[in-house]
Amino acid sequence: MELLKARIQQDGVFKQGGILKVDSFLNHQMDIALINEIGREFARRFAGTKVTKILTIEASGIGIACIAAQYFNVPVVFAKKVKSKNLDGDVYTANVHSYTKGTDYIIRVAQRFITPQDHVLLIDDFLANGRALLGLIEITKQAGAKVAGAGICIEKGFQEGGKIIRQMGINLQSLAIVGEDADGGLMFYE
Amino acid sequence: MELLKARIQQDGVFKQGGILKVDSFLNHQMDIALINEIGREFARRFAGTKVTKILTIEASGIGIACIAAQYFNVPVVFAKKVKSKNLDGDVYTANVHSYTKGTDYIIRVAQRFITPQDHVLLIDDFLANGRALLGLIEITKQAGAKVAGAGICIEKGFQEGGKIIRQMGINLQSLAIVGEDADGGLMFYE
Repeated sequence: MELLKARIQQDGVFKQGGILKVDSFLNHQMDIALINEIGREFARRFAGTKVTKILTIEASGIGIACIAAQYFNVPVVFAKKVKSKNLDGDVYTANVHSYTKGTDYIIRVAQRFITPQDHVLLIDDFLANGRALLGLIEITKQAGAKVAGAGICIEKGFQEGGKIIRQMGINLQSLAIVGEDADGGLMFYE
Repeated sequence: MELLKARIQQDGVFKQGGILKVDSFLNHQMDIALINEIGREFARRFAGTKVTKILTIEASGIGIACIAAQYFNVPVVFAKKVKSKNLDGDVYTANVHSYTKGTDYIIRVAQRFITPQDHVLLIDDFLANGRALLGLIEITKQAGAKVAGAGICIEKGFQEGGKIIRQMGINLQSLAIVGEDADGGLMFYE
């Protein structure tokens, strides 16, 4: 997606070790006009795919999923990362390892919000090692629902997540796939 | 807001002790059409008020803030609750006590995303004791910005948050103010 790539070039901060900061427009401050275009692009890429629900994970996926959902006319469900008093009843859970934080955490979704009839589109801001997305896939499968696809804003092409997800046969659409060139600068695989 | 109140009546679960669960449409599964109407209502209530930025807090405020922001044409900033490696540089912080969880936590906003020129509209899903909203107000004031107002979906009228915020002279707009009637059932103050 050219608009997103141009914005990453302009306002993203790329650091040694493949760290890409996009907190001025995507995951701390959010440029809603840009995210609206991202939602429209997800709708274009998944046109013709049956989607009954969008599933994302707190926190930075939520805004993107909600804006995108307007183009799909479906509800959003966000997986919760912490045990909450407000999440009782039967829940699906998956364990997710965070490489950034060096710890594991549990994600939870109330069972009544994903049913075997659902076609679930997974949406998130970043894909790196893929652990969060694999957690969402696991929850979708526990529910007996179908994974309609996965829409990611920025994939780190030098990490394994994208390869793992594509090898599972999932229609993964990443709007920008970033990498590091020979001089340690930012480049785009796609 | 009649649409929201009707939905709370229909799908909300009210429990003894003033617990109101709205996770089927507001803060776990999200009905985007409803949230769009909520955004439109915030725009109506703050028409004529200068707003340059919407500030919310992760996680459940983010989706509502992003949808609402489309009616204000301003960016969203969400305060982060946990220390994150991706949030470096200078940050504003505030301490928030959570009555639900019985603990304190720190919220953080990168300083460069709120400036003294900003007129900040605060948005969140719930207002009860008001500690989260007071944290957002504190951060706005640290930045030297103006609090344009606060838009809340559901205020618990039997808790002190609303009173505290209004006594500060802040234009607090709660779309539904809930209480408990003499029989322990759900009622609306407004």
